[in-house]
Amino acid sequence: MSFSLGKLFRVTVFGESHGVGVGVVVDGCPAGLNLSESDIQVELDRRRPKNPEISTPRTEPDRVRILSGVFNGFTTGAPITMVVFNEDVKSDYYELIRYRPRPGHADYVAYVKYGGFNDFRGGGIFSGRVTVAMVAAGAIALKLLSRFGIKIVAHTVNINGIEARNYDLSDINSLEEVVERSPIGCADPKASEEMLGLVKKVGEVGDSVGGIAEVVISNLPPGIGEPFFDTLDGDLAKAFFSIPGVKGVEFGVGFKAASMLGSQYNDSFSLANGRVVTKTNNSGGIQGGLSNGMPVVCRVVFRPPSSIRIPQRTVDLIKYEEVELSLSGRYDPCILPRALPVLRSAAALVLVDHLIISHVMPRVLR
Amino acid sequence: MSFSLGKLFRVTVFGESHGVGVGVVVDGCPAGLNLSESDIQVELDRRRPKNPEISTPRTEPDRVRILSGVFNGFTTGAPITMVVFNEDVKSDYYELIRYRPRPGHADYVAYVKYGGFNDFRGGGIFSGRVTVAMVAAGAIALKLLSRFGIKIVAHTVNINGIEARNYDLSDINSLEEVVERSPIGCADPKASEEMLGLVKKVGEVGDSVGGIAEVVISNLPPGIGEPFFDTLDGDLAKAFFSIPGVKGVEFGVGFKAASMLGSQYNDSFSLANGRVVTKTNNSGGIQGGLSNGMPVVCRVVFRPPSSIRIPQRTVDLIKYEEVELSLSGRYDPCILPRALPVLRSAAALVLVDHLIISHVMPRVLR
Amino acid sequence: MSFSLGKLFRVTVFGESHGVGVGVVVDGCPAGLNLSESDIQVELDRRRPKNPEISTPRTEPDRVRILSGVFNGFTTGAPITMVVFNEDVKSDYYELIRYRPRPGHADYVAYVKYGGFNDFRGGGIFSGRVTVAMVAAGAIALKLLSRFGIKIVAHTVNINGIEARNYDLSDINSLEEVVERSPIGCADPKASEEMLGLVKKVGEVGDSVGGIAEVVISNLPPGIGEPFFDTLDGDLAKAFFSIPGVKGVEFGVGFKAASMLGSQYNDSFSLANGRVVTKTNNSGGIQGGLSNGMPVVCRVVFRPPSSIRIPQRTVDLIKYEEVELSLSGRYDPCILPRALPVLRSAAALVLVDHLIISHVMPRVLR
Amino acid sequence: MSFSLGKLFRVTVFGESHGVGVGVVVDGCPAGLNLSESDIQVELDRRRPKNPEISTPRTEPDRVRILSGVFNGFTTGAPITMVVFNEDVKSDYYELIRYRPRPGHADYVAYVKYGGFNDFRGGGIFSGRVTVAMVAAGAIALKLLSRFGIKIVAHTVNINGIEARNYDLSDINSLEEVVERSPIGCADPKASEEMLGLVKKVGEVGDSVGGIAEVVISNLPPGIGEPFFDTLDGDLAKAFFSIPGVKGVEFGVGFKAASMLGSQYNDSFSLANGRVVTKTNNSGGIQGGLSNGMPVVCRVVFRPPSSIRIPQRTVDLIKYEEVELSLSGRYDPCILPRALPVLRSAAALVLVDHLIISHVMPRVLR
Repeated sequence: MSFSLGKLFRVTVFGESHGVGVGVVVDGCPAGLNLSESDIQVELDRRRPKNPEISTPRTEPDRVRILSGVFNGFTTGAPITMVVFNEDVKSDYYELIRYRPRPGHADYVAYVKYGGFNDFRGGGIFSGRVTVAMVAAGAIALKLLSRFGIKIVAHTVNINGIEARNYDLSDINSLEEVVERSPIGCADPKASEEMLGLVKKVGEVGDSVGGIAEVVISNLPPGIGEPFFDTLDGDLAKAFFSIPGVKGVEFGVGFKAASMLGSQYNDSFSLANGRVVTKTNNSGGIQGGLSNGMPVVCRVVFRPPSSIRIPQRTVDLIKYEEVELSLSGRYDPCILPRALPVLRSAAALVLVDHLIISHVMPRVLR
Repeated sequence: MSFSLGKLFRVTVFGESHGVGVGVVVDGCPAGLNLSESDIQVELDRRRPKNPEISTPRTEPDRVRILSGVFNGFTTGAPITMVVFNEDVKSDYYELIRYRPRPGHADYVAYVKYGGFNDFRGGGIFSGRVTVAMVAAGAIALKLLSRFGIKIVAHTVNINGIEARNYDLSDINSLEEVVERSPIGCADPKASEEMLGLVKKVGEVGDSVGGIAEVVISNLPPGIGEPFFDTLDGDLAKAFFSIPGVKGVEFGVGFKAASMLGSQYNDSFSLANGRVVTKTNNSGGIQGGLSNGMPVVCRVVFRPPSSIRIPQRTVDLIKYEEVELSLSGRYDPCILPRALPVLRSAAALVLVDHLIISHVMPRVLR
Repeated sequence: MSFSLGKLFRVTVFGESHGVGVGVVVDGCPAGLNLSESDIQVELDRRRPKNPEISTPRTEPDRVRILSGVFNGFTTGAPITMVVFNEDVKSDYYELIRYRPRPGHADYVAYVKYGGFNDFRGGGIFSGRVTVAMVAAGAIALKLLSRFGIKIVAHTVNINGIEARNYDLSDINSLEEVVERSPIGCADPKASEEMLGLVKKVGEVGDSVGGIAEVVISNLPPGIGEPFFDTLDGDLAKAFFSIPGVKGVEFGVGFKAASMLGSQYNDSFSLANGRVVTKTNNSGGIQGGLSNGMPVVCRVVFRPPSSIRIPQRTVDLIKYEEVELSLSGRYDPCILPRALPVLRSAAALVLVDHLIISHVMPRVLR
Repeated sequence: MSFSLGKLFRVTVFGESHGVGVGVVVDGCPAGLNLSESDIQVELDRRRPKNPEISTPRTEPDRVRILSGVFNGFTTGAPITMVVFNEDVKSDYYELIRYRPRPGHADYVAYVKYGGFNDFRGGGIFSGRVTVAMVAAGAIALKLLSRFGIKIVAHTVNINGIEARNYDLSDINSLEEVVERSPIGCADPKASEEMLGLVKKVGEVGDSVGGIAEVVISNLPPGIGEPFFDTLDGDLAKAFFSIPGVKGVEFGVGFKAASMLGSQYNDSFSLANGRVVTKTNNSGGIQGGLSNGMPVVCRVVFRPPSSIRIPQRTVDLIKYEEVELSLSGRYDPCILPRALPVLRSAAALVLVDHLIISHVMPRVLR
C-alpha cells in the first residue's frame, strides 16, 4: 500500500480495473479555484481510446463525478473526491489468468505480495485503468498551473525506433497543437504516420510495441525542488515510475551525457530580456535537483504492453508446472497515445505540490 | 529542505562541503545489529579518491564518529547519528564563484532559492561531499541486508562511449571482486584500462567526462515495493536522482524497450529449483513496481562533472553581465569510480526501508 | 488540509455535512480480512441518533457503500473506499450563518482560513458528520483488532457534574454490555438515568451540555508506541482532538497526578500468571509513551455543543457590526452518546497503525 | 522509532542520557534568520537546574555546538544540526536497574520493545535529557516566532494542590517577567513560595511531586491548524505528550467544560479595535482545531517524577521474581521548573511548522 502522492497537495487514488470504479481524493488543493466536472472530463476524454484501430475495444464513457470539495463552483480547501464508475467490465475471462500469471504483467508479484487475496480481474490495482484517477487529479493540477502560466506537453518521440525528429520545443503552444492533431501524439507529422502504420501492423498480429515520450514543462520559475532528497527530477521520476509500463526516465540529453565532455555538456549562463538563461539546455532545466528557469525536458520509456495474443510460456501457480498461455481479446498494442495525458497529469501533480511547498502557489487563490 | 529519506528506516543527512562536517541520523534501524565505527569506515574508505591521477587532490581522512544509537556494540533501536568532520577545507577561492555561478552546477539555483543566504563554499549542500553521509548510513543498511543474504554491486559500464561488455551478472560475488580490482570500478578488464586512460587524458586538459553505472541487487525476495506510488523502481530512481550528477535511470533493458515487441520483451515465467523464475530479465527484476525475485538491474547515467578548468561563460549576478569564468585547482574528471559506493548506499537505504515496511525485516534482530 | 491519519494504516476522510456525502479511503489494511458492508454498517448504526428526545432530528439512514478494496468477501491489500451519501439535507437555513458565525463553532475560523470559499452549510468539513467517515474506517480497524483479542470500550463518565461511579473496568466484555444498554452510554445505571434526565431538560430549553468519556483498551501487548514523538498517548490524543468538541485528554489518573506524590503514583511491578503487571494503573497503561501491557485508560472531555437555540451575540462579517444570532431547529443537546463510537474508532485507527509499525500485525492475514 | 516532528519545519532529535551527547537536526528552517550559538544557549540555560535545593545534582554545562546550516551568521536553508555533549555522566549505578525496572519509568517497556538492546543507562532515550534537543530546536523556533510578534510563556499553576490564582494573562510580557523571577516558574508570588517549600520538603524525604503547567501563546493569527487531523490543538497535545512525564493536556477551561452549558461556554464574538475577538476565552483560542486569534491557553499535567529514593516494589526480569528497589542518589523532586522551557519549545516547534504550512511564515526571511 501507498496510494498517496505528495506532501501538501496530496492525492490518494483508489479503485480496480474491474471493480465498482476508480477515483481519487485530492487533499490540499488551494481554495478559490473555479472548478466543474467538465474541467475534469476534458482531460479524461484525452485519455480515452481515440483510434479503434490501435486501441482496446473496452469503451468506457469515463464520466467523472465530484463527491466533495467543490461548492458554488469553487474549490473550498477541503478534499476533492472524484469517482469514475466502471461500466464496460467483462471479468469472467480473467479466471484463466488467476493462477497463470501473464509474462511481463504484475499478476505474479501481486499474487505473492497479497497472498492470493488480490483482485486479479483485469490486473486489479496494477491495471492502467487506475491512471484514470491520476488524470482526474491531474486535471485540477493542470488548471492550477495554468493560473501561473506553467504549461506541460507530453508527446511521442519514438516507437520501435521510428523517431520524431522534426519538431520545435521553442513554442510550447504550437507544439501542443501539433501533438493534439496526431492520433499517436507525435509532433513530427511524417514520423506520426509511420508510427501509426507500425502500431496497426503490430496490433494485427497480436503483438505490442514500446516507445518513448517526452515531457516538456515551460515557464516554471527557478528554484523549485527540495534538496537533498525531494529533488524535482527525483520526484518527477518517481511519479512517472508509478505509471504502468514505465522503465526509464532521463532529463535533458539524458543517457547521452555518458558520452559528453564537461565542456560540451555544461549549459553556459547568459542574459536574455533581463533574465538569466542558459544557451543550451543539456541538463533539461534542472540543476542540483532544482529547476533553473529553462524548460524542463525529460524522456520516459514505456515497455511494450504485456498483454499480447501471441502464445507465451508461464507457470501454473497451483499445479506448479510450466504451461502455455494464450490470451484472446484485443489489447492496446501501444500505450503511448493514451499514456501522454497520464504523464502530463503525473508531472502536474508533482509540480503543484512543489510550488505550494516553495510558497510560489498560495493556499487560497484570489 | 527535505534532507530525509525513507518512511520507517529514515535517514536525515546534514552538513556542507566546507562547513564543520557532514553527518547523518539513521532513525528506525532495527535493534540488535552489531555495529562499530569500523563497519562504517570500510564503506567510507571505498568512497575516498583511490587514484590520484583521476581524482581531486582534496584528501580527507573521513573518519566517522558514532554519536548515538549504539550501545555495547549493538544498535539499540534509537537513532544512530554519525559525523565526519571536514578537515582539508580551502574556501577562500570560492568567493570568486559567489556571484558567478559555475555552468552546470547548482550555484545559480541555490542562490535563487535561498535568497543568497546559501553556503556557496564548495557548493555547500549541493556538493558531492554530502554523499559521505549517504554512504555512512548506507553502510548500516548494507549490513542489515547482508543478514538477509541480499547483496548490491555497482559497477561502471560506460565512460564516454567505452562500454563494458565482457562481464557476468550470474555470480554476484565474483562480479564484486572484479569490480573492486578495477581503479574505475569496471568489471570488464579491457574496458577498464581504456576508461582509465581516457579519464586521465580528459583530466589533464582540464575537462571532465560522464558515464553510466549499473546497479545489481541479488537475492531480493519477490513482492517488495508498495503500489501505487511507492514502487520499488520509483523509490530507487528518486534516491539515485538525489546523488549529484545523475540525469537518468532505467531498469532492465531500459530505453531499449522502445524498440522491442511485447513478444520479445515479456519475461516468460518458468520453474527452477522449485522457484518461479523468468527465463530472461528484460524488466530488470521489477514488475508493476514490485520485485519479482530475479536480480534487480538498473542503470544510472552521470553527467560530466561541472567543475572544469577550461574557461566558460557565465553571468555576474551583481553586475548583471556576462563574464568568463576560469576555475583553477583540480577536480574529479570523472565521478563514476567514487559514485559507485554512493549508488550502493542509496539502493541499500531504499531496500531496508521497503523490507521493514513489507515486514520481511523485523524491528528487532536476534 | 490534512485529511489523512496514520503512517502505514492510513485513512483519508472526505465529504461535507451538506454535500454529496462523506467517505473515507483506508490505505494499508492487511489483505485477507473478511469484510462486508454489514461489518461497517453495524458501527455506523451505533453512531446514529438513538433517542429522539436527546438528538438532532436529522435522520440519515447512513447506508455505507464499499467502492474498492474488497474482493470475494476479503480485503485485497488495496485501498478500501467507503461512501455514505447524504440524504436528509436542509441547507437553506445556513445562509443565515454564512457571515454571522455561531459562537463556539468553527464558522469564523473556516471563513478566515479559506477566504470565504468554505462550504459553510452545516459547518461543512467541521461538522460532526465527517465522523461518519472515521467510524466507517474504525469498523475495519476494530475488526482487525478483534483478531488480536484487543478490545476498546468508550463510555460516558460525567455529564454536567453527574459522575458515573459504580462500574467495573476489570471485565471489559461486561462493561461493554452495560454501556450498550444505556441510552447515554453510561456504565453506572443510576448515573445514566440522571444524565438522561438532565440532557432532556437542557435540550428542552434550547441549551446544550458537555461531558467526559472514558476510553478503555484491553489486551494491548506491551511496547506499542514509537518514541520519541510518535508516542501512543500522543497519537491517541491527536486523533481524539480531531473529533469536533474535544477539549482535553488525560491518561490514567490524569490531572489528578498534579496532587500526588511519586510514592503514591508509581505503579509497582509485580507478577501475575507469569506476566509482568502493575498493581495499580495510575499511568493508564502507558509509560514513556509506550503501552505497558495493562489496560490503556484515558478520559476525553467534550465541550457543550455550540449550536443552541438560546440567542447569542456574534459579529456580522460583512457589515462588521455586532448582532444577535437566534438559531431555530433542534440540535444534539449533548454529543457524548453519539461520540462514543467515534472515540472507539479513533482509538482503533491509531492502534492498528501502531501494531503494523511494531510488526505485531502482519500485512497479510491468514 | 520516530524521532522526527513536523512536516515542513522538521526536527529530528537524537542521543541518550549517558551516551556521547544529545542533539537535533532542524530541517526546513527558513533561510535568512540571524542565528548564533548564544541564541541557543540562552534557552538551554533556562532548562538547567537553577535551584540546587530542588534539582538533580547532575550539573551539565550544556554547551551547544552548531554543526551545520548557519553561515556568516545567518541560516542558509540547509539543515541546522546542534549537539550538546554529555559530560557529567555516572553510569555504573544503572546496572542495578538493568533488569529491575523502576516503577513508573520506561525501563520495562523499553526492555520489551527493544529486546533488551536498549541503552538503559539513565533511561537512555526515555530520559528527560533528550529534551535538551527539543529546547535547542525550540530556541530557533522561538526566534522565528518573535519575528512575527508571537510569544509563548509557560508557567507553573499547580503543584500538589497549591494553585497559582493571582496572575494576569492580559499582558504576556509582564507575565513572562514575573514567571522568570520565580524559582519554580509560578506567576503568583505567594503560591510560588508555598510550592517551593513543598518541593523542598518532598525532596528531602526522597519523594517527588507532580504539577500542572499552563502554556499561553499570544498574537497568533486566526486560521492556523490543518483540518481534519492536523488540528492545532491535536498537534500541540501530541508534541507535549512526547515530553517525559506528561499525562494530560486541556485547552481553555478544559475538563471544566464537562460541567458547563453551551450558553455559558460559547465565546461570543465581538469587535475590538477593528478586529473580531471573543468576549470570553473558554475555548482557549482554538475552534474546530484552528486558532481564532485569541490567546491560545492550554494546561499540561506532569506526573511526579518516577525516580524516588523511597523503596519500591518491582520485578527482576531475569530471575522473574518480585524484589525491592532502593535508588540512591538525588533526583528532581518536581520537574515543573525545568519542564517549562521544554513546553515553550515544543509549542514553538509546532507553531512554526503550522505557520510555514499556512504560508504565514515564508521559506526565506528578508
